[in-house]
Amino acid sequence: MGTDETLLLIFIAFLAAKVGGEIVERLRLPAVTGELMAGVVLGPSILGLITSEHSFLDILATLGATFLLFSVGMETKLSELKRVGMIAASVAVLGVAAPFVVGYYVSILLNFSSVEAMFIAAALVATSVGITARVLQDMGMIASEEAKIILGAAVIDDILAMIVLTLVSGTAAGEGLNSIDIVIVIAEIACFIAIVTILGTRMVRYAFGKREIRHDRTVDGSWSIHYKTRAFKRDSWLEKLVQKEAPFVVILIVVFGLSAMASYVGLAAIIGAFFAGLIFSDTKNTYELEHKFEPLNVLLVPFFFVVMGAKVDLTNFASVVPLAIVLTVVAILTKLAGCAAGAITRGEKTALIVGAGMVPRGEVGIVIGMIGFNMGTIGSETYSIIILVSIATTLYAPFLIRTIINAETKKERRSTNWRFNLRSRT
Amino acid sequence: MGTDETLLLIFIAFLAAKVGGEIVERLRLPAVTGELMAGVVLGPSILGLITSEHSFLDILATLGATFLLFSVGMETKLSELKRVGMIAASVAVLGVAAPFVVGYYVSILLNFSSVEAMFIAAALVATSVGITARVLQDMGMIASEEAKIILGAAVIDDILAMIVLTLVSGTAAGEGLNSIDIVIVIAEIACFIAIVTILGTRMVRYAFGKREIRHDRTVDGSWSIHYKTRAFKRDSWLEKLVQKEAPFVVILIVVFGLSAMASYVGLAAIIGAFFAGLIFSDTKNTYELEHKFEPLNVLLVPFFFVVMGAKVDLTNFASVVPLAIVLTVVAILTKLAGCAAGAITRGEKTALIVGAGMVPRGEVGIVIGMIGFNMGTIGSETYSIIILVSIATTLYAPFLIRTIINAETKKERRSTNWRFNLRSRT
Repeated sequence: MGTDETLLLIFIAFLAAKVGGEIVERLRLPAVTGELMAGVVLGPSILGLITSEHSFLDILATLGATFLLFSVGMETKLSELKRVGMIAASVAVLGVAAPFVVGYYVSILLNFSSVEAMFIAAALVATSVGITARVLQDMGMIASEEAKIILGAAVIDDILAMIVLTLVSGTAAGEGLNSIDIVIVIAEIACFIAIVTILGTRMVRYAFGKREIRHDRTVDGSWSIHYKTRAFKRDSWLEKLVQKEAPFVVILIVVFGLSAMASYVGLAAIIGAFFAGLIFSDTKNTYELEHKFEPLNVLLVPFFFVVMGAKVDLTNFASVVPLAIVLTVVAILTKLAGCAAGAITRGEKTALIVGAGMVPRGEVGIVIGMIGFNMGTIGSETYSIIILVSIATTLYAPFLIRTIINAETKKERRSTNWRFNLRSRT
Repeated sequence: MGTDETLLLIFIAFLAAKVGGEIVERLRLPAVTGELMAGVVLGPSILGLITSEHSFLDILATLGATFLLFSVGMETKLSELKRVGMIAASVAVLGVAAPFVVGYYVSILLNFSSVEAMFIAAALVATSVGITARVLQDMGMIASEEAKIILGAAVIDDILAMIVLTLVSGTAAGEGLNSIDIVIVIAEIACFIAIVTILGTRMVRYAFGKREIRHDRTVDGSWSIHYKTRAFKRDSWLEKLVQKEAPFVVILIVVFGLSAMASYVGLAAIIGAFFAGLIFSDTKNTYELEHKFEPLNVLLVPFFFVVMGAKVDLTNFASVVPLAIVLTVVAILTKLAGCAAGAITRGEKTALIVGAGMVPRGEVGIVIGMIGFNMGTIGSETYSIIILVSIATTLYAPFLIRTIINAETKKERRSTNWRFNLRSRT
């Protein structure tokens, strides 16, 4: 019976992901790496339990990616973007530009095709700061200026990564770097973002209307009183729905709808999910929403990482691993240099800590790898390299951050001592 | 791109299910019927959007069925079984026996093969009392004796349905009604139930240990003090897990594990999910658990019903519908008669209301249809008939319940008046 083998594999994949996650979390590393490595173990390289035949797992992985990107979007609060300021913006922009440009040219030098080089470069772009946040928390630095810059930059980073992904997959689909194509792609994503954010924000405000009013009233008295009256006159259409969990259902429909719409206009489907998250990220009941989506993420996201891990093919170990090492070094150095350059006005110590904190790649890079692989634009080896680089940067980042913080603190103490000595001598 | 069409169909299926559910819920009918009918509309009979080619939807349907049966199990509280008493038990047993026996022989008379007749009879067995509960609530009778008997009987009903399903699918797999096979199947399910409930309950008590103690202390002082000390000495292993939502993750693993195990020993996978629900139904934090599973059900269960609806093939309308009508009549009359016979000691009015309340079939019958269809034991026409009977009984039940309650109330009033007249005359 087909169903039975299906459920057995679902059980194995889920169990392996959670055991892998548990093990690496005990080592104070992010669960993602454990889930990916569980996938590598289950995949054709080692146990061969999950192979490309088991396409039913792909649909779970797709759903996992959808809800993952939705939560990434939810964490990207547009209202916070105004607060993070110029430093975070320059850290994000330089931290995206450096790995992309250098990653692209290094990949070309390593004999990748220009389309593959583009995907590799794009996968090196997005930062996953979960691990950084934890390391800084451990070191009692989560409220520091560095942490604020890193978290702010990561938000902008995600949006930039989506734009880079759109450009890359758009030009890859057109199989060339035609400048008209690029303009069309940019116009497309601009229209999509404009329509989604303007219409979406309005619809959300209309649906969750009453909640937003109190928030607005403190800002602009006269306008919001008008708005308040309107909202009180007509009830939110959401409240007229009789079914269970109606707001949650409506959001699920929006997530699937925007994903389908994004792919219809030629963007990656997950960009739709990301923007769905963005739309709902600024509503007042975000906390309640995240609470509802949490079980979906706990169930589905592990399938994404296990399946992504299982697609890693290490049969060409000798050709894959050296390239992965070179690109990991490129990924680390470019991010470190780019982000440090963006924050250099805040002093060397801050710049270096911010640079190190932005090193870990994660979810978004893996999603980019998946899209290239599913499009058939990048081969199995290139895909495997992207996953390995993602794992390696994430595993290395905590050591790098701790080393830099300790070294800089020591240096600072030495210079303080030196100054202290000078002063005491005079 | 495969992923894009996938997401579009997921969007359409989910949207259709929720719109269908919303419409029928406004008519005060259960969402299930709306979701099934949405599936019929999307299926090959009408729009042809969801066909057997879209096998990726089947995996979502399987997951939906798994979590659906898990919640059915969660609602089947073993501790309540002791309370419901003999009346509920006899209502359940007779309400299962009558449709099964009559359904089987009527199907044989209608020229179905014996295996198909068995599946049809099994699908006629399980009651879905959600709609009944709502009708009784509307009529202010939810706290009545009838309601208590119905809800108690429905719990036993589900367990009996699982046993019938196991026997039927076991004998169908053996392709014959060999008495040794039946004994083996009964032994198998007995072992499975024994191992799962004994081991499972112990594991759950161990994992969620501290919570259970207070509950036990009032029952048996000396024993529970010993137990309490033990539980206090060693911490629950669940609390040692570092990952997010660890208890929820462990339960998900148990659900998938028992489903895989059930199918490994030759039972239907969903029986494992049902027993997983049963194990956790008596823990103290059931409410919290149901809260976590709610979003999974909201997302996944509609896919089950839409996909099940989409498998209904009405191209042979002329041959399917008359048979469906005959079997609907059989389904209604046998359940009504069987359950009423079980409750006859409580008077005619109670017996008839209980009988009518047990008429709606639903989830479990559809799951049984799916299993037969997936096994290849029942054909597309038989499957379609099972789904149509399920829909028809559920749609008809509210009218039947209201008619019987009104008629019986009128009769009662008339006899009261008569008695009153007699008394006033003397």
